[in-house]
Amino acid sequence: MKLASFKIKSSGKATIGVVLADGGYLDLHGATNGELPARMIDFLELGESAMARARAVAAQAALGRSNVIPANDVELQAPVPRPGKIMHTSCNFPAHLSELTTWKEPEWQSHNWGEFHFEHPTGFLEAPSSVVPTGASVQVPHFTKQLDYEIEVGIIIGKKAFRVSPEEALNYVAGLTIFNDLSARDIQAREHSNKVILLGKSFDGSCPLGPHLVTLDEVGDVNNLAMVLTLNGEERQSSNTGNVIYKIADMVSWWSNITLEPGDVITSGSPPGVIAGRKDASYLKGGDRIDCNVEKLGTLTTFIVE
Amino acid sequence: MKLASFKIKSSGKATIGVVLADGGYLDLHGATNGELPARMIDFLELGESAMARARAVAAQAALGRSNVIPANDVELQAPVPRPGKIMHTSCNFPAHLSELTTWKEPEWQSHNWGEFHFEHPTGFLEAPSSVVPTGASVQVPHFTKQLDYEIEVGIIIGKKAFRVSPEEALNYVAGLTIFNDLSARDIQAREHSNKVILLGKSFDGSCPLGPHLVTLDEVGDVNNLAMVLTLNGEERQSSNTGNVIYKIADMVSWWSNITLEPGDVITSGSPPGVIAGRKDASYLKGGDRIDCNVEKLGTLTTFIVE
Repeated sequence: MKLASFKIKSSGKATIGVVLADGGYLDLHGATNGELPARMIDFLELGESAMARARAVAAQAALGRSNVIPANDVELQAPVPRPGKIMHTSCNFPAHLSELTTWKEPEWQSHNWGEFHFEHPTGFLEAPSSVVPTGASVQVPHFTKQLDYEIEVGIIIGKKAFRVSPEEALNYVAGLTIFNDLSARDIQAREHSNKVILLGKSFDGSCPLGPHLVTLDEVGDVNNLAMVLTLNGEERQSSNTGNVIYKIADMVSWWSNITLEPGDVITSGSPPGVIAGRKDASYLKGGDRIDCNVEKLGTLTTFIVE
Repeated sequence: MKLASFKIKSSGKATIGVVLADGGYLDLHGATNGELPARMIDFLELGESAMARARAVAAQAALGRSNVIPANDVELQAPVPRPGKIMHTSCNFPAHLSELTTWKEPEWQSHNWGEFHFEHPTGFLEAPSSVVPTGASVQVPHFTKQLDYEIEVGIIIGKKAFRVSPEEALNYVAGLTIFNDLSARDIQAREHSNKVILLGKSFDGSCPLGPHLVTLDEVGDVNNLAMVLTLNGEERQSSNTGNVIYKIADMVSWWSNITLEPGDVITSGSPPGVIAGRKDASYLKGGDRIDCNVEKLGTLTTFIVE
C-alpha cells in the first residue's frame, strides 16, 4: 500500500490517503467519516488496526469513486510533513566515505576522514522544519556557494520502539520513502571541523521527503532496492540499498537506543556521486532539477531556484 | 512574567499558566474560558496580544483566587514540553573549549580541539523527544559509563524569525529558561571522531528544560546572569552568561539562517567544570542530584537513577 499526505486543491482540506492503482488518491479521513485521522502521525499512532482499516477502505474504493481525489486535484505534502525527529546515519555507503576523503575543497582536507569509527552507527539530527514534499522548489541559501544533493532512503517508524533487536526491528517500521539530503558543503565543512553539523544540513527546504510512504509488504526486500539520482536528466548517483555498512534493520535497532516514535524518520546515508566529490562538476544552481528514484518507492523531484 | 506548562494533579488537566508571586499557578486556559490555549507553542504563536492578555489576567488573579492552582497541585512540565527544534551552540564558553582539549579519556585526545573554527556559531540539534521537566528522574543509559552534566541557558523563540540581525534578534525571543545538557561522553567521543553527534546528547531524558519561561522584561540584562551548577550540593560549574563568544542576540541572529518558530529552543553552550574535564571526579550515578541555578531564572533540578 502507498500512503500519502496531501491537500485537496479544490477544497483546501489537508488529509491523508491511499494512492490507488489508477493514480487517484483515496481520502481516508473523508472515506471513514473522520474515524481515521487526517494527519499521518496520528494515523500511524493508531497502529495495525488503522492500517488494516485503510487497506479495507482502499479495496472498496476500487469499486466506487467516493472520496477518490483525482491526481490533478492533489497537492502532495511529504508523507510525514513534520516528523518528530529525523536521524541521519553518517557514511553508511563505504564508497561515499572513500569519496569524502578526496574532496577537493581545502577545508575538507584537514578532516582526517580515513579514521572513521564503525563500532556502531553514528549520525546527526536534521530539523523537522526543513522537510518539503516532492515537487518543491528549494531556494539556494544565501550563505552557500556549494549546494549539493544526496539520494537516500527514508525509514518511517510505525510504532514506538525502544531497544529493539535487529531481528525484530522491521516490525516497528511503517514503510519507506525517498530522502534527498540537500547539503551546503562549505558550511558543512566548517561545522564538521568542529565535530558537529547543523546549518549545513538543516536549512529551509534541505530535507525533501517523498513522494509516498510505501508499506513494507509492498516493498519486499528492503536490502535490494536500486537507487538512482539524476541531475537535469544526467545520472549522478547509482547504487543499491544493499551496498551499506548498516542495513535498515541495523539502523532502526541502533537508533532505538533513543525511543523512536511513529512518524520519526531514519535516513540511510547516501552512495557516492555527489557534486563535492566530482572534479568536473559545478554546484547546484537555479533552474536545476533533481530526480531521486528508488525501486518500488517512486521518484522524489526537487527544483532549485535562486 | 514567569510562564509554565503544567498538569493539574487533582483534575489531570494539562495547561499553561503564570507563576504568581505567592507561588500559585494561574491556569490561563481556565481563567480565559479557553480563549488562551492550553499549549505553550499555541500560546506563543498568538504573539504579543496573548502575552498582554496573560499579564492582565494575572494582575486580576492577584486579587481573587479563581483558577489559581496551589503549587502542591501542580506537576510541572518543561515550559515547552516538545519544542519544534533544539539548536545547541558548540563551545561557546572559551574556558569550556580549553577544558575539552585536556580531557582525560583517550578517545578525546585525537580530536584536535585546538583548531576550533569561530568564523560563525556552529552546533548541532538535540531531539525534542529528549526534553524532561525540572524534578525529573533520568536513568543512566545502558550504553554509557560516562554520564555528565552541563548547565546552559535555553532561549525560547517567541515569533517566527528568518535572517534577523543581532540588533533586532531579542524581539523574537519570548524568554529564557535553564537547560541541562546531559551527555554520554563515551558515545559523544566516538560520534565526534566522525564529526557528528546524536546519541551522546539526545538519549531519553538528556534534555532537562525549565523550570519556567521567564519573559525578557523580567530578566533584564540577558548578558549578565550568574550560572551555578551543583552536584549533590557541591559547586561544580560557576560562570556568567557574559563569558561567551556569541551572545544571546548573536546566536538568535545566526541560527535564524534557518526559519525559527515559536517554541524553538536555542541553547547557550556550557561553561567549564564538567566531569569529563576533572581529573578527580567520577561520572554521574544513581542517587545523584543536579541543581542548575541561573540568576532570575530559578533552579532546574534533575535526579539520576539507575
